[in-house]
Amino acid sequence: MLEFGKIVLFGVGLIGGSFALALKKANAVEEIVGFSRSPNSLKIAQEIGIIDRAGINPAHEIADADVIMFATPVQQIPTILEKIFPYLKNPNTILTDVGSSKLEIVQQARKIMKGKIGQFVPAHPIAGTEFSGPKAAFPELFQNKKLVLTPLKENKDEFLDRIKLAWRICGAEIFELDPESHDTIFAGVSHLPHMLSFALVADLANRENSNLFFEFAASGFRDFTRIAASDAEMWRDICLSNRYTLIAEIAHFQVVLNNMMAALATNDKKMLEQIFSQASQARNEWAKNKQK
Amino acid sequence: MLEFGKIVLFGVGLIGGSFALALKKANAVEEIVGFSRSPNSLKIAQEIGIIDRAGINPAHEIADADVIMFATPVQQIPTILEKIFPYLKNPNTILTDVGSSKLEIVQQARKIMKGKIGQFVPAHPIAGTEFSGPKAAFPELFQNKKLVLTPLKENKDEFLDRIKLAWRICGAEIFELDPESHDTIFAGVSHLPHMLSFALVADLANRENSNLFFEFAASGFRDFTRIAASDAEMWRDICLSNRYTLIAEIAHFQVVLNNMMAALATNDKKMLEQIFSQASQARNEWAKNKQK
Repeated sequence: MLEFGKIVLFGVGLIGGSFALALKKANAVEEIVGFSRSPNSLKIAQEIGIIDRAGINPAHEIADADVIMFATPVQQIPTILEKIFPYLKNPNTILTDVGSSKLEIVQQARKIMKGKIGQFVPAHPIAGTEFSGPKAAFPELFQNKKLVLTPLKENKDEFLDRIKLAWRICGAEIFELDPESHDTIFAGVSHLPHMLSFALVADLANRENSNLFFEFAASGFRDFTRIAASDAEMWRDICLSNRYTLIAEIAHFQVVLNNMMAALATNDKKMLEQIFSQASQARNEWAKNKQK
Repeated sequence: MLEFGKIVLFGVGLIGGSFALALKKANAVEEIVGFSRSPNSLKIAQEIGIIDRAGINPAHEIADADVIMFATPVQQIPTILEKIFPYLKNPNTILTDVGSSKLEIVQQARKIMKGKIGQFVPAHPIAGTEFSGPKAAFPELFQNKKLVLTPLKENKDEFLDRIKLAWRICGAEIFELDPESHDTIFAGVSHLPHMLSFALVADLANRENSNLFFEFAASGFRDFTRIAASDAEMWRDICLSNRYTLIAEIAHFQVVLNNMMAALATNDKKMLEQIFSQASQARNEWAKNKQK
């Protein structure tokens, strides 16, 4: 069913592209117009059918847009928003994003949009792969994945419902969190693991004999470092946009790591096993619950 | 071909069990006699066909053993070795292990075996899953996996060749390292990732609202923490037996992590992206080479 008119998509990579492909597959959108700083990505996106056409004049395109989605690395969103905001005339156009951190983007959008902030619906789809770009996009990416909205008090229910509808069409299950809780939770379960995984690989890659290390790295290393293959710029932006929360999470983590180091230094079998057991039980429990 | 007579197996879990099953599948061993501190594991191992029978008197069993393999958590090896050593009469019986750290076990074996240390061939198969126990064992576990020998100067070539043969029958590719290099490399690519993964899950499990964190943990978390589901006692032993090297590796890692924290604190896009890019490139390169 044609639920949406024109969607203007900034960023046509894995997330924006998969969102577009899912809506198109469901025949839920009349037209998708894409913008990207990479002419090549835009060309590929059009060839693959992510977008119907590449936009030329943002001011012109947003005038009659139903939804404007920001699917660029998060730190580009305020720059784009600032540029297009003067042309946002239609009070029913909904702006939304897919950023992995929410507090900073909400603050920045508030500053730019002022009285019109109610038109901005912050969202975060919990899906992705270590690949990026339009070629990595596929319509099923969000099937049975979570979509977290962090609604603002200014958002009209009607706007929230429209964005929820779009993501339900993509196959996602909708959740709501406040931006602060969102950023703390994802710092812990996503941004921090990425930092640790990047740090480990960078640490080993910097050794003189790094080849020897990589030669003997096996399946544990493979899984632990899968997320270290992720796009560096995207993750730089996510981590920086959530930096205060993330620094606190790293510090919290370091307490546990230092306890482990102390247990090693003092050969404290009991303490080390206690930490390992707790982790192992919690991880097994988590996997069991996920399967349900 | 019947290459081996009697093999005495201490520890009948994932690694020892898979080794036994592979040799049996190849009809390469006459008899496997198992010992375990868990009567239940021993019973299962016999039912599954990992062992031909459960041993009762170690002194009696090792007298005519061709190979004695230690496949218990590493910190149990010296205790067992000490107990059985007085009964080791046959100068052609080869002792070997499967421990993930090598320096400490070599030192301990040297202390116990003295002039007979040449009969001990230290080995480490680079294979495993997050599961443990005899039920997790399967004969293909070592197919196309690496087996690292850390030969001692006292080892006769003939003994090394016998152990290499056994592992080749299991499908493994044989490598040699000195014990120090072995322990540094595996601290970096295996023991440290396990510590970090255990630490992250323990950190989150300790929160008051840990349920909320786990609720939103997705595929990145799943892969990063797969190794945190590993057996706590086994990993306690591995990490403690390699503790000096591991502490140095953690300290080395913390330098990188602290650089990342500094980049976050000062909003240093360039530095953060540089570390992330280096990691991402190295990880992608590694994956490409592995596929060859």
